[in-house]
Amino acid sequence: MEHELVVRGGTVLSMTPGSAPVPDGAVLVRDGEIIAVGTCAEILPQAGEHASVLDAGGGLIVPGFVNTHTHLAMTLLRGYADDLPLREWLEKYMWPAEAAIMDAETVNLGTRLAAAESLLAGVTCVCDMYFHAEHVIEAVLTAGLRAVVPESMLDFSTPSAATPAHALARQRELLGRFKDHPLVVPAVAPHAPYTVTAEYLVKEAELAEEFAAPLIIHISETRWEVEKILAEKGASPVAYLADLGILSERTVAAHCVHVSEDDLALLAEFDVGVATNPVSNLKLASGIAPVPQMLARGIKVGFGTDGAASNNTLDLLRDAQLASLLYKGLSGDPTCMPARTMLETLTLGGANVLGLAARIGSLAPGKRADIVCLSREAPHAVPTFDPYSHVAYAARAADVCHVVVDGRIVVRDRQLLTMDVPALVAAADSAVERARSLLK
Amino acid sequence: MEHELVVRGGTVLSMTPGSAPVPDGAVLVRDGEIIAVGTCAEILPQAGEHASVLDAGGGLIVPGFVNTHTHLAMTLLRGYADDLPLREWLEKYMWPAEAAIMDAETVNLGTRLAAAESLLAGVTCVCDMYFHAEHVIEAVLTAGLRAVVPESMLDFSTPSAATPAHALARQRELLGRFKDHPLVVPAVAPHAPYTVTAEYLVKEAELAEEFAAPLIIHISETRWEVEKILAEKGASPVAYLADLGILSERTVAAHCVHVSEDDLALLAEFDVGVATNPVSNLKLASGIAPVPQMLARGIKVGFGTDGAASNNTLDLLRDAQLASLLYKGLSGDPTCMPARTMLETLTLGGANVLGLAARIGSLAPGKRADIVCLSREAPHAVPTFDPYSHVAYAARAADVCHVVVDGRIVVRDRQLLTMDVPALVAAADSAVERARSLLK
Repeated sequence: MEHELVVRGGTVLSMTPGSAPVPDGAVLVRDGEIIAVGTCAEILPQAGEHASVLDAGGGLIVPGFVNTHTHLAMTLLRGYADDLPLREWLEKYMWPAEAAIMDAETVNLGTRLAAAESLLAGVTCVCDMYFHAEHVIEAVLTAGLRAVVPESMLDFSTPSAATPAHALARQRELLGRFKDHPLVVPAVAPHAPYTVTAEYLVKEAELAEEFAAPLIIHISETRWEVEKILAEKGASPVAYLADLGILSERTVAAHCVHVSEDDLALLAEFDVGVATNPVSNLKLASGIAPVPQMLARGIKVGFGTDGAASNNTLDLLRDAQLASLLYKGLSGDPTCMPARTMLETLTLGGANVLGLAARIGSLAPGKRADIVCLSREAPHAVPTFDPYSHVAYAARAADVCHVVVDGRIVVRDRQLLTMDVPALVAAADSAVERARSLLK
Repeated sequence: MEHELVVRGGTVLSMTPGSAPVPDGAVLVRDGEIIAVGTCAEILPQAGEHASVLDAGGGLIVPGFVNTHTHLAMTLLRGYADDLPLREWLEKYMWPAEAAIMDAETVNLGTRLAAAESLLAGVTCVCDMYFHAEHVIEAVLTAGLRAVVPESMLDFSTPSAATPAHALARQRELLGRFKDHPLVVPAVAPHAPYTVTAEYLVKEAELAEEFAAPLIIHISETRWEVEKILAEKGASPVAYLADLGILSERTVAAHCVHVSEDDLALLAEFDVGVATNPVSNLKLASGIAPVPQMLARGIKVGFGTDGAASNNTLDLLRDAQLASLLYKGLSGDPTCMPARTMLETLTLGGANVLGLAARIGSLAPGKRADIVCLSREAPHAVPTFDPYSHVAYAARAADVCHVVVDGRIVVRDRQLLTMDVPALVAAADSAVERARSLLK
């Protein structure tokens, strides 16, 4: 028997291009696929009598948020090393800590914690970049979170691969095993142009090409990186990777903070997706990515939180709001990144970056049902003159009352249905307590 | 009989200078005054058997947040006009809307909504700047919110004063009536150097001096304002006000976005308090105030949300976090505005700006009990390596579980005890619905 779900009782912002808000709207879902979007009067008669119902209670019904760049398991290192420059943070704290504590079980726990935090904040799809990929996948599937999951490669030993060749073999196995999975998209992830050799960067691109898989890579996050690659390769990181043949429409380029006009032209030419991480870039004082210029050039852009060790949360809505404010202030133009553009980047834009725009990112018939209901019951949520503006400037993670991923209700009335949150929180606290002697 | 309250079961961040966090700490309150702060082992034996108890549940116990600049009743214009430049926003939308709808009853309703939002977000003290002061006061007292409340003055007619002379008379009456109130600090508020004549600016300063009251004024919010005053008065707004004799340790100077080194020297010399509004300044693209430079000069600085029509919430913790991130990114220095400085500015710094540091802003014996408990039960709140970092980078308004103002429990288990929130939200929605025909 087919399973039907009706999400109703709120203003629908479908984010399909050119669409208008639908007051008193509804979304009909059948076996995880969106069948129809419209007013309650139009949609309710189409639903069977046994359909499940989620009521948005007069709030908003929007596509799930897409976090295009994060390191999920690093929730366990949240607040471990703050107020530090990126290289010191990364080389003196993060890499040693990961080597010391990030075994398969710990990665699984940290990822479960991250998945809980993400879903409760309305994030229905994440692009992870970490190690022990099969344990990340177990965690996101337990949580019911859609995810792009790579095994990451560095020139040196990682928690799950002793050598780049080992990482490559693990990636190939992963790509074969999860090729047609409904929720997980397997991927490859060379860490960055300064931590993976040209030889292995090329092998990564070939593997991604063979499986038509996303290739996730950090690019031009810091000025230091740009200067290093310029000195060593005679080109900017973007130009160097373009020359190597790494860049394509499957590339998910995290950061792109320090990019020139020529770099932007290359990103546009190769149809690279950019995962911008405004909070992490500010916190580590890496800089500020030229996102409005990217959008103006038609470059695909989505928001990312980066890992919780440099954010320190996975609250993507907050980060998107911050970006929208930031670029107004910096540009001196209050119309820069207006409300609807912000919500589009948070949803459809992110899906586009991950190569998933045909499946998710908007509420349109034929797409998978990744849906978030935002409550308007709290004092900060009234009045609502304009629903896009409401999301861009007033809504917050705590307003997320129901979340549907691939047609499955994973959060209902602010409660995560797939995992025991108090047990998870206690386990995370204990794991960190036990690991303290291994950390600086 | 004396009334005792014990807030216990969390790590206390008292924010008294030089203090360390107190794990498993407690605060003893008697008749609204803080009597002792220490470990539970030290404090609990001092409490009487009939003392009320608030348990922080393993979270944090911090001073209430101080919002140094807002226009409370403008919650009703939340989202009414977004993505616009300040002058168009102010002159074409805000002023006409205020003239059309902001009668005494509407101001009272908007202020109640704002007070509910503020308390639920851990804000225990606000500095308002609006009209119909007696109706603002009625609302904040109903809510149980501590507030600095002025009657505002402009050269033109306001919703509660036909002329500046009328505003002045209303201010004098207010100052006399609420002189020694435990929760309300009456104040004067000439709107800005470009909207109040020199004659009335001087009268305002004299009145503030006579009653030792705060004088609240917008200064150097936009480049336009600075250029206008420079052209008309031959001096920057700060220098012009200094020359007029307006600036003193009682001045609460909102914004100070466009200030020169000479202006900063004047603000320091006259011991002016600065209320910085990072989100509003970004959203209206007014610019970015040089807050780190102010702090380096020893200028008193507190955070403000500004009104909900230009923010669009009163979530001061979020705004403080954004500021802390912003200045790291802009300065290229990740140690800029570190976690403890951010929390200090959010609490004691704000109290200092409002001239209330002897009464509130830190958890110290002799001060009034304005206390917030932050839960650590949600996935985004674990682990906690450092409690200051937790507040600066991970905590959010939704973590505010208990709030005490002047010894009175106003929020318990995330529920506002002083007002009916659903009724308030419904009333706000209806009022705006009724007013729509009066708005653009």
